[in-house]
Parts: sequence; structure tokens; C-alpha cells
Amino acid sequence: MPERSLIFPEAEFRERLARLQSLLHRDGLDALLLTTAPDIFYVTGFLTRFWESPARPWFLVVPTSGEPIAVIPAIGQDLMSRTWIKDIRTWPAPDPSDDGVSLLAEVLSEQTPDNGRIGIPKGLETHLRMPLGDFERVADRLGTRAFVDGTNAIQRCREIKTEAEIEKLRAGCAGADRAFDSVNSFAYAGATMAEVFRSFQIKLLEEGADWVSYVAGVAAQNGYGDVISPASDTPMQRGDVLMLDTGAVKDGYFCDFNRNFAIGPVSDDTRRTHEALWYATQAALDQLRPGMRAVDAHAIIATEIERHGHRVVGGRQGHGLGLSLTEWPSFTELDGTELRAGMVLTLEPSAFVQNDRILVHEENIVLRDTGPELLSRRAPFTLPELL
Amino acid sequence: MPERSLIFPEAEFRERLARLQSLLHRDGLDALLLTTAPDIFYVTGFLTRFWESPARPWFLVVPTSGEPIAVIPAIGQDLMSRTWIKDIRTWPAPDPSDDGVSLLAEVLSEQTPDNGRIGIPKGLETHLRMPLGDFERVADRLGTRAFVDGTNAIQRCREIKTEAEIEKLRAGCAGADRAFDSVNSFAYAGATMAEVFRSFQIKLLEEGADWVSYVAGVAAQNGYGDVISPASDTPMQRGDVLMLDTGAVKDGYFCDFNRNFAIGPVSDDTRRTHEALWYATQAALDQLRPGMRAVDAHAIIATEIERHGHRVVGGRQGHGLGLSLTEWPSFTELDGTELRAGMVLTLEPSAFVQNDRILVHEENIVLRDTGPELLSRRAPFTLPELL
Repeated sequence: MPERSLIFPEAEFRERLARLQSLLHRDGLDALLLTTAPDIFYVTGFLTRFWESPARPWFLVVPTSGEPIAVIPAIGQDLMSRTWIKDIRTWPAPDPSDDGVSLLAEVLSEQTPDNGRIGIPKGLETHLRMPLGDFERVADRLGTRAFVDGTNAIQRCREIKTEAEIEKLRAGCAGADRAFDSVNSFAYAGATMAEVFRSFQIKLLEEGADWVSYVAGVAAQNGYGDVISPASDTPMQRGDVLMLDTGAVKDGYFCDFNRNFAIGPVSDDTRRTHEALWYATQAALDQLRPGMRAVDAHAIIATEIERHGHRVVGGRQGHGLGLSLTEWPSFTELDGTELRAGMVLTLEPSAFVQNDRILVHEENIVLRDTGPELLSRRAPFTLPELL
Repeated sequence: MPERSLIFPEAEFRERLARLQSLLHRDGLDALLLTTAPDIFYVTGFLTRFWESPARPWFLVVPTSGEPIAVIPAIGQDLMSRTWIKDIRTWPAPDPSDDGVSLLAEVLSEQTPDNGRIGIPKGLETHLRMPLGDFERVADRLGTRAFVDGTNAIQRCREIKTEAEIEKLRAGCAGADRAFDSVNSFAYAGATMAEVFRSFQIKLLEEGADWVSYVAGVAAQNGYGDVISPASDTPMQRGDVLMLDTGAVKDGYFCDFNRNFAIGPVSDDTRRTHEALWYATQAALDQLRPGMRAVDAHAIIATEIERHGHRVVGGRQGHGLGLSLTEWPSFTELDGTELRAGMVLTLEPSAFVQNDRILVHEENIVLRDTGPELLSRRAPFTLPELL
């Protein structure tokens, strides 16, 4: 008898399901169809890196009452049967003539009334992880039932983390903290970014990450030009500021924060910009409260950066975090999402050092009734200098 | 001036574009819209792990003649400008009121005639990496233009690897070969799978992987129950067969093969099944030729497994490989895709040891006019025994 593979006790998943179903009810949906790894893991505990293969779609049907139904390729039967999900329907994927289409349509029809409304995430930060042609074929088979936008239900549910989830996120951040502590052992003038990335990933694994889904970084004089680059073979030079950013995964949960380091002495502009970002983070740590909106978080951070004489970089100054490297909301001037207790968020102020050179700084928090509680260990006020 | 970030010379991308455009022309398409990381990397060389963030969509519009147009979030401007792509249009994403919708619709309208046909991959092994609601909004704005299935064009193009791509794939496989050589240093009775997975990922990085997107594995007596599990905390026992499978990435290209090991002496059934898989692989290495179909590859492998007295596991016995962990075609009884010279493929025979216990074995090849050329180093005939 293979062991069960639950990351959490069954009661945790049942509590999530109850909250999700009450949101489906509120939104007038008869069922929700989920297709992505984080959505399906959230409800079932089904955790596998096999999502990396685009060959097969996976479906979870969440009815408004009763238990979820997994509609999945036969290759996943064994692993899914070790979660708390009991109703598992499989087909021998990949089948070019009918790759789960008729099975999924059958389950959706069985679980919803005529003229039923089936939610599917269609909004910002979502995508449909199945062939679009097959989705159209399923929709055709549903007769009087219709697919409607179910983004609100799944996002309002997932965005409030349980204490069990927060423990996972805290553990992941702590591992990344320890990996950042060791950066001085492999980052120095002359080392290439490719070497630094490799060593950093190894440290993250050694410090407890199950896998490392995201590393970005850059080293340059007076700040950097972008924050999403992969490693280059350019050696670091004295006077560079090095930024390393990671999304390491522990039990399915991401951390997402970065650290900056001076490779030998750096310019005063660079140091002062780093301090401005520290102050902006501190302002958010002091002032953020449930009931504010994402736009308010942006305003707190932007105001503090400007108060210290720096221009804010366009784009977001923080975002949600959890089962994906980034989740909604976005701390921009445009996002009116309410901030609620239990949200796990990144504070990510960014400012221009000079011209087009920027610095970015990031911490991870959980928002409590009383304000933010740090999950990452607070970065030092003074940019640390590596030899 | 930041360095360019091309993985290949510009001529490589221009040759790919020419082939892709001739297929668009053949299929009567006026443009192709690409949204996924591998499709966009294939044409542009834009390589970043930032795809891990679902917050922002990215678009590439490939007209039937002329150069591709990147329609991307402003955060990607710097990195995209270091590829060979010249025409880059950006918007300040994420924008909840218009997240690239009007900009994308404008570019598609500009690049295609009235009543134009815009291809988008909708078939097997594809998905649309943008919010479905935004896709519907773009479609609404296109007036008389229509989205049609463009799967055939992009898949027929990508499936034939250039020699430059094959070199990348060969290098990735060689790194994984070396990592597999070191399994005896960390896999032994008493070690947990979590420890084995961690050490294996570290070895893959040390042996040159840029990152490790996929590791799966399992250890059990007389074969295993599934091949997609993440690590467990169960210690391995003497008599277990250990399977480790990896998709490590080098310059954007995946390897995908596994190895089996005996943890001390294992059952005769296990050994004989491993040998049957070796023979089945050998049959495919000897007999596969361009012009055969994916179904023929399945038949060669299945026949040889049965000839050695074993039952074949349902599902596929090999598949394509390249910019994703798995690509089309699938070696099943149902896939009629033609095998062509230049395809990189996995041979992945699987057989029952007894009851519901299975073994799976995998090698990576490039199909030449004369038959398969191995990219992975051939696994030994006899199941290797670790102490």
C-alpha cells in the first residue's frame, strides 16, 4: 500500500473546499473547472513536477456541494489516489481523437443542471491549461450550460492563506534567508553570473528547497537595467551591485524575495538608493493594514521613495505570493483589490539610481489584523559589501 | 551597452523564421500569434525564468513575411532588445483595465488583411498562455479577421531540430549522464527520496545544467507504481529498485531520460524486466527510420517487450523533446505523426514486472536519415547495483 502524499491533513483541504464552495454559491456558479497546477494543488494536494510536460491536460471539477472530481490522465491515477480525492476518472492520454473531452463534458453535465453556469478562471493572472480547441469542443457538448468567469471565486479563496499555509511559506523564506547568508562564499569580483546562479541554486537546495523554480539576477555598476535576466558569462567587477532574486519551492509554496550586495565599494548613489528602498519597505511595514487597497500600498511605497529624492520605477511595487511565484493583487496605481488579513504579499519597492539604472528590493510578509508580519528576515539598512 | 543575449547567431533565428513563414504560407495563414515560453524562445531567443510568474502575458506576432513583432510588458523591454528582434511594442503591465489587449489587437490588425486568418496553436500539447477573457476581447476587436488553428505550422517547424539545437541537446544530455554517474555517492539503503532528489539536483547543476525543471523518481520493491511522484521522506530499503528521471535545462533545451538502479540485490523479475526494456530500446535504435509513423515506433517497442514475455504499460513509449520536457509526437497506438530526420525523441519503453509494478527506461536520440543517433549515453544491459 503506497503511502499517502498529503502535504496537509485532510481537514485543511476540507476547510478550503468549504470556503471555495461558499464563494461559488455567492457568485451563482454551479461548478468550477480548474486546469492549472496551483489551482488543482490548492484543492487536492496533488503535487508533481510532471506539469512541466505540456502533453496532457488535467482537470478538477468542483461542484457547489459535494466532493471534487478529478478528471485526469491515467498516468496520474496512482498519485491522485494518494490524496484525499476519492472520485477520480481517468482516460488513456494522450489520445489525439478525444483527449479527455468527452469524459470532462460528461462529468460537467452530470454535476450541473440544465442551463447551469460553470465557472472557469478567465481573468487577470489566469490561463486555461488545456488545448483551446478541446475547450471549445467541451463547450459545444455542454448544450444549454455555459462557461462563465470564475476568477473571483478561486482568487478570493486562495488569497487568504491558512495558518498551515503560512507555516510552509515561512519555512521556505527561512531557507532562502540562509542561502542568501552564504552569498559571500561564491560571489566576488571575477566570478561569472553563471557561476553565481549555479552556486546560489545549490545553496537553496542545501538549505531545504525541494526545487528552485526561479532565480534571476544581475550585476552592474550604479544599478541594473532589468530584473528578469538569466545568467550571463560576464565576470562581476569591483563596484558592481549584485542583485539575486529567487522563487524556491518548499512543499509546493514559493518564496519570492531578493537581496542586493556591493562587490567591493560602490557609488554613493547606489548606497543611498538602497537606503531609500529600505525606508520605503519600512513605511509599508509600519502602515499597511487590512481594508486598504493595493493602490494604497503602492502609494505608501512610492511616497516614501520620492520623499528620499528618488524616482519610482514603473510597474508594481509588490504583489501576492503563495502557490505561484507571483499572485494577485499588484501594488500599482491601477489595482483596487482589497488587502485582507491572511494575505501573503511581497513588498518590492524599486527606484532609479540614475538615468536608466535601477535598484529593486523585496521582502515577504503576511498581513495580519495588526499589520504586516515579516516572513523573510529583514534586509540590512546598509547595502552589504562583499570582498 | 548591455551585452546581447542571443543563445544562437542571428542567422539561426532567421533560418527558423523562414521555415516557419513558409509553413504559414502553406497553411493559408496571414500571421501566427505565439504566447508560450518555448514558442517565443524558438523564434526570438528570449530566454528568462520570469515565465514562472503568471502575472503578465507575452505575445509574439509572426507575419507571413517580414520580421516578428514582440508585444510584451515593459518589464521585458531591456531583455528583448538584446535579442535579434527589432520591433518591440510594450505596455505597462499589469493593467487591469487593458492588459495588452488593445495593443495586441492593433498589431494583429496592422499585420493582416481584412478577412485575414490568424493562426494560434489550439491543438494537442498546446495551450493559450493569456487570460481567456482577454483572448476573447482581442478576438472581438479583430472584426472580420478570425483566429484559426495554427498548431500544424509551429509544430512541423519546431519538431525538426537544427544542428545548433542538437548540439545544445547533446550537451544537456551529457551533463545528465555525468550526474547519473554519481548516483552511487548519495543513493543507498536508508537514504530518503527527499535526500536523493536534493543531491541529484545539486549534481545536475554542478555538471552544467542552468536549472533543473524536472526531477521525478521512486524506489520500491519489484518495480514502482507511478513515475511522476515528487520526493517522499521514506528511506530506501535493500531490494528496492530506484528510478530517477530528469529534465534539466541547458541554454533553454531539455534533456529527458531516466536511469534505474538496484539498491542491493533485487528480484530476478526486476532484473529480467530491465533487460527486456533494454532490448526494446535496442530494437528501436536498430529499426527506427524517417518515414515511419509514431505508431510504428510504438509497435517496434511493444513487440520486443512482449517477445521477452512482458506486458507493455499503457500510454506512450516515447515522445518528442526539445524546448519542453516533452514534445509531440507520442509513441502510442493512436498517433499517426510522421517521424522525420532531425527530430529529437525519447525512447521510453515501459513494462510490468508483476501485478501493478512497472519499470520504465528512457534514452534520448536524434533521428537521422540512417536511423537513431544516441544523445544520452546508453544505459547498461544489466541493472546496476548500488551498495
